[in-house]
Amino acid sequence: MALARPAVLDAALRQCTRAPRRPLCRHADQHIPLHPRLQRRWISDGSRPPVPPGSPGPSKVIAPKTRLAVGIVFIGTLIYSMATGNDPPTSQDTPKGGIQAESPTIAERDNLSKRESGITAHSPMRLRMEAFIKENQQDIVRTLETLDGSRFVVDKWDRPHGGGGISCVLQDGNVFEKAGVNTSVVYGSLPRQAISKMRANHKALDPDVESLEFFAAGLSLVLHPHNPMAPTVHLNYRYFETANADGTTNAWWFGGGTDLTPNYLFDEDVIHFHRNIKDACDAHDKDYYSRFKKWCDEYFHVKHRNETRGVGGIFFDDLDESEKDQESLFAFVQSCMGAFLPSYLPIIQKRKDMPWTEREKQWQQLRRGRYVEFNLVHDRGTAFGLNTPGARVESILMSLPLTARWQYQHEPEKGSREERLVGVLKKPQEWV
Amino acid sequence: MALARPAVLDAALRQCTRAPRRPLCRHADQHIPLHPRLQRRWISDGSRPPVPPGSPGPSKVIAPKTRLAVGIVFIGTLIYSMATGNDPPTSQDTPKGGIQAESPTIAERDNLSKRESGITAHSPMRLRMEAFIKENQQDIVRTLETLDGSRFVVDKWDRPHGGGGISCVLQDGNVFEKAGVNTSVVYGSLPRQAISKMRANHKALDPDVESLEFFAAGLSLVLHPHNPMAPTVHLNYRYFETANADGTTNAWWFGGGTDLTPNYLFDEDVIHFHRNIKDACDAHDKDYYSRFKKWCDEYFHVKHRNETRGVGGIFFDDLDESEKDQESLFAFVQSCMGAFLPSYLPIIQKRKDMPWTEREKQWQQLRRGRYVEFNLVHDRGTAFGLNTPGARVESILMSLPLTARWQYQHEPEKGSREERLVGVLKKPQEWV
Repeated sequence: MALARPAVLDAALRQCTRAPRRPLCRHADQHIPLHPRLQRRWISDGSRPPVPPGSPGPSKVIAPKTRLAVGIVFIGTLIYSMATGNDPPTSQDTPKGGIQAESPTIAERDNLSKRESGITAHSPMRLRMEAFIKENQQDIVRTLETLDGSRFVVDKWDRPHGGGGISCVLQDGNVFEKAGVNTSVVYGSLPRQAISKMRANHKALDPDVESLEFFAAGLSLVLHPHNPMAPTVHLNYRYFETANADGTTNAWWFGGGTDLTPNYLFDEDVIHFHRNIKDACDAHDKDYYSRFKKWCDEYFHVKHRNETRGVGGIFFDDLDESEKDQESLFAFVQSCMGAFLPSYLPIIQKRKDMPWTEREKQWQQLRRGRYVEFNLVHDRGTAFGLNTPGARVESILMSLPLTARWQYQHEPEKGSREERLVGVLKKPQEWV
Repeated sequence: MALARPAVLDAALRQCTRAPRRPLCRHADQHIPLHPRLQRRWISDGSRPPVPPGSPGPSKVIAPKTRLAVGIVFIGTLIYSMATGNDPPTSQDTPKGGIQAESPTIAERDNLSKRESGITAHSPMRLRMEAFIKENQQDIVRTLETLDGSRFVVDKWDRPHGGGGISCVLQDGNVFEKAGVNTSVVYGSLPRQAISKMRANHKALDPDVESLEFFAAGLSLVLHPHNPMAPTVHLNYRYFETANADGTTNAWWFGGGTDLTPNYLFDEDVIHFHRNIKDACDAHDKDYYSRFKKWCDEYFHVKHRNETRGVGGIFFDDLDESEKDQESLFAFVQSCMGAFLPSYLPIIQKRKDMPWTEREKQWQQLRRGRYVEFNLVHDRGTAFGLNTPGARVESILMSLPLTARWQYQHEPEKGSREERLVGVLKKPQEWV
């Protein structure tokens, strides 16, 4: 088994074995609805014992009405990929073409397994991925808090049939205008219609069953710095699995990627970012970087502007056994995730205190507007989430900047740095 | 024949008969592509003879590549209603399920008619509607310029097969953060697929033809004031017609409406706005206001927030001979358009100089964010336009505010004016 960051994973495994999970809640109505604000706490708040965001201890549940949708929404991109007919769930309990609330036996099994044996390298990938994303969320949040000098607000909830989510958001900090780092774990059931759509990419799926249990887990982050010289960055890594009736794994795949969105081009930053990602890719497959770099440029294309959202990175989806074995792909995702802080921290460190002018701030605000356009008009995950009744909109739209601007017929001056950026966005380049 | 504003119409008719139109351009390539900026001029600029925006004199053509799409986009809402399959045109010349470039005989006929006899009360509705919207655009732009003390930037273009558009935009003025008043006239051809979709609402359409010529004309405006106490307003009125092979009218209908989006509720303002619209409706049909007010609340519903975009107004579509005769409906639309300035001017006059705090400005910015969400996520016309290759994006997104804000988990204080607004948006009220 290849592990790119064994120390981190080990830590995650140890952490997740410390406390037993609460018994699976089968009836949402047994919970007392609480206002989301009541559940907030500060990560590593000195006044309380440090509690890792992934730990089960003090978290409370959100109003039952919001829970299924919350889970769906956080990994909207992932779930969208299985429901490409643009039909989001039409209700929380009996969604059309989406997810049905059914007895989630893999959730029960996972819960039992966590309580009895903890999570080890021999646990199902579901549990290892959950531990992995929560550990990384915690690492990233703590690192960003140190950088910014401000604390993230943490909202945490459980889902009635297993799984849950943690939203960490830092707003109007010292370095970041808005930063969100979210994890989500969902157990659910896919109806026949969704299964047949997913078969296009995953032949292991049985077309003859009425429904299939599924599991999904992912980490998403978007960081919008204040300084116009510092780029916005986005990252998302996710794992999806369906189960046979006997609880064994049916189909599974990984997806995700990361991309950089600067307002001003510093070639050295873009090269550094791409170099780090490429190194992570190259360690697993010499073709990955070029394949997934191209895929990223294609996915983050703002069609109506005929430009990419930023200077790219990597994007991939549906990586399953037809690509490589599960351990190899998990190791690849671990490498990618591990490359994130090294790829972005040196850039934000260099740019966060650079001087800027009012004109440059306005340009940043215009570029923020383009970011909003991509996310609200073209991003499949956002669209899917927003069209899901009862969705936790605040978690979906966490990706939007704090402020944005739309100026009629704004055009960068000839020969300006702004014009150079737009040129690169209209014609994606090779950076490494 | 009933004319609600005969003086205005007469003026429009006179104006449109003053100068002969240029001959119809059949070959786009014969034009020299000009940068859109080259075509700008100031309405009523004292240094030049006053030229009404609708007059044919000094306007030049935009690069041929942009023209068809430009026309499509301006009345995206209208054209969307005929292509409900969410399939926007896939190219400018041979759109899929959209509009085909063909010999536009009604355009030729209209052009000849304008040159030979001018536009009179006996002209086809196409020409009367065109004259009507251009006259109103001019009235509204001049009134708003007087109010604001700033000039609109005017962009004007012709379409290769007849028709064209005029965009008037005022940005960062004294009263308005952003104000756009657009007209558009389109001649085109509907393919069989689009015809069969439109038949659901218009039985007059012949399902057995391969294509039908169509005409569409509309006026759209969005005004975003600076002052958080002053409401944003939106208006759109449009006319659509298809022609038989012999050039006679096949099917036709009117659509449109107007709605108000305040950041702070002044009941007297909302009542005044609705009262004016209701009076315009009541003069034609005692049921119109209640029917179209309900339709407005339903259309401008931001589903994912479970709130309306604003406090409504009226919205209607597909009003054809099954509703009333053409003259009666034109008279109704004229009344609605005529009610606009009286419905909004007293409100903006009262609110534009009110004192406001930084907190109130931030609330306005958050509401602007919601406006962006509706327009980019839910508005069918915007979606259709943005998905149309080669669309004039600046004209579509003219409706977006200059600045907007997204704040994670912002909630109005209990008992505050902000909370009262949200309450009304979640449960639309009867105002008159």
